[in-house]
Amino acid sequence: MAPGTPAIRICVVLVAPRNPLNIGAAARAMSNFGVSDLRLVNPYQVAFREARSAVKAQDVLAHAREFPSVADAVADSALVVGTTSIGHRVLEHPLRRLEMAGRIIRGKLAQGSVALLFGSEKFGLSNEDMGHCHWLTRIPTRAEHGSMNLGQAVAICLYEIVRSPTAARQAIEARAAAKGADLERLTALLEEILAASGYVHERVEGSTELKLRRLVRRMQLSAHDAQVWLGMLRQIRWKLLS
Amino acid sequence: MAPGTPAIRICVVLVAPRNPLNIGAAARAMSNFGVSDLRLVNPYQVAFREARSAVKAQDVLAHAREFPSVADAVADSALVVGTTSIGHRVLEHPLRRLEMAGRIIRGKLAQGSVALLFGSEKFGLSNEDMGHCHWLTRIPTRAEHGSMNLGQAVAICLYEIVRSPTAARQAIEARAAAKGADLERLTALLEEILAASGYVHERVEGSTELKLRRLVRRMQLSAHDAQVWLGMLRQIRWKLLS
Repeated sequence: MAPGTPAIRICVVLVAPRNPLNIGAAARAMSNFGVSDLRLVNPYQVAFREARSAVKAQDVLAHAREFPSVADAVADSALVVGTTSIGHRVLEHPLRRLEMAGRIIRGKLAQGSVALLFGSEKFGLSNEDMGHCHWLTRIPTRAEHGSMNLGQAVAICLYEIVRSPTAARQAIEARAAAKGADLERLTALLEEILAASGYVHERVEGSTELKLRRLVRRMQLSAHDAQVWLGMLRQIRWKLLS
Repeated sequence: MAPGTPAIRICVVLVAPRNPLNIGAAARAMSNFGVSDLRLVNPYQVAFREARSAVKAQDVLAHAREFPSVADAVADSALVVGTTSIGHRVLEHPLRRLEMAGRIIRGKLAQGSVALLFGSEKFGLSNEDMGHCHWLTRIPTRAEHGSMNLGQAVAICLYEIVRSPTAARQAIEARAAAKGADLERLTALLEEILAASGYVHERVEGSTELKLRRLVRRMQLSAHDAQVWLGMLRQIRWKLLS
């Protein structure tokens, strides 16, 4: 973790994972999203050892803890959410699509820690494992191929939880938009060039200005690109009129 | 694809991928999310062959196509979006967080096909590759460990694009809520039992009813669970009063 960045209070619980690559992939995704608490219930020991020796996400793996049962692994969690690809077959538990689950989990994190349970690669969570869950969540894969790779499922769940609900409405990053005055200069310059080149006839000149103004706005130029365009157009005008 | 399920008009373009597991993982995530058009630019040939022999997502891999250049791979795309973990260092291109990118891409898919470009595991997209992109997107990983596994990055991008903006506001799936009448029966039964068991004293009976009513509502019972609770409480009452 970066200094001053508190780890998100989520623990990822892998129940009976078999494949060291998946354990490593889960740990890497956790590191990507700032989640550090990895717990394994009854892992295949060879897999756990091999995963520990992987180069990526060593921090997360070095601090991973083993538990003898799901009950022990989630004993300190205020909310336990199981993951499943089964869909409507599971009637004993409330089932939420991940988009909804993420919103609830984000809200819950203010009150306590949340455990996310993932079953084994082959069988998923057992009914007994699910008994420890408050509810289940499902990544909205298509029905014909619902089962996801474990490492990818962990990555998507963590992405959804740390996602910013407001970011979908935010503007482009790190790129100042062109000022209106520059866009006006650009429009005028373009019109002048088009007139000089014979593209614009005097008869339709008025409507052309309006069309050009709209055309230039639709380019959604950055401040930098507007300067580049102005430079290019000035050069073209010089050539045309010289 | 399922009959009647049109494939989403996204193509995933992997530029110079090296690891067969990553090519296979990308294909599997595509299959999970109903995206079938996989394109490879200059893949490491051994990796491509090995990935093709993997068991999962064979459909996607069998139809994967090779292209000699990025320009050829995206020639038919209305929008080309590159992925990067670099953040603010890339100033030549507009950069959007994935949450925002997903919204724009969903809108664009109505007009034409969209290409999502992923660079090689080691180097990401080159400046030349990025030159073919309309803009770039970044998965919001933490700055200290921004670089994601290729297969996981593909999975998260596709999840974000196919995600339902309304699903985050939807109720629990496949679980009818208990009817008010049953909750009233439950409240009354519980009160009767508590009175019979000596938990409720006559002096405070009035305020207890209100508290119990709220307590029962906070359980957010399903129709099925309400019946189970009614059955249990009736049995307890019978035992207490017999």
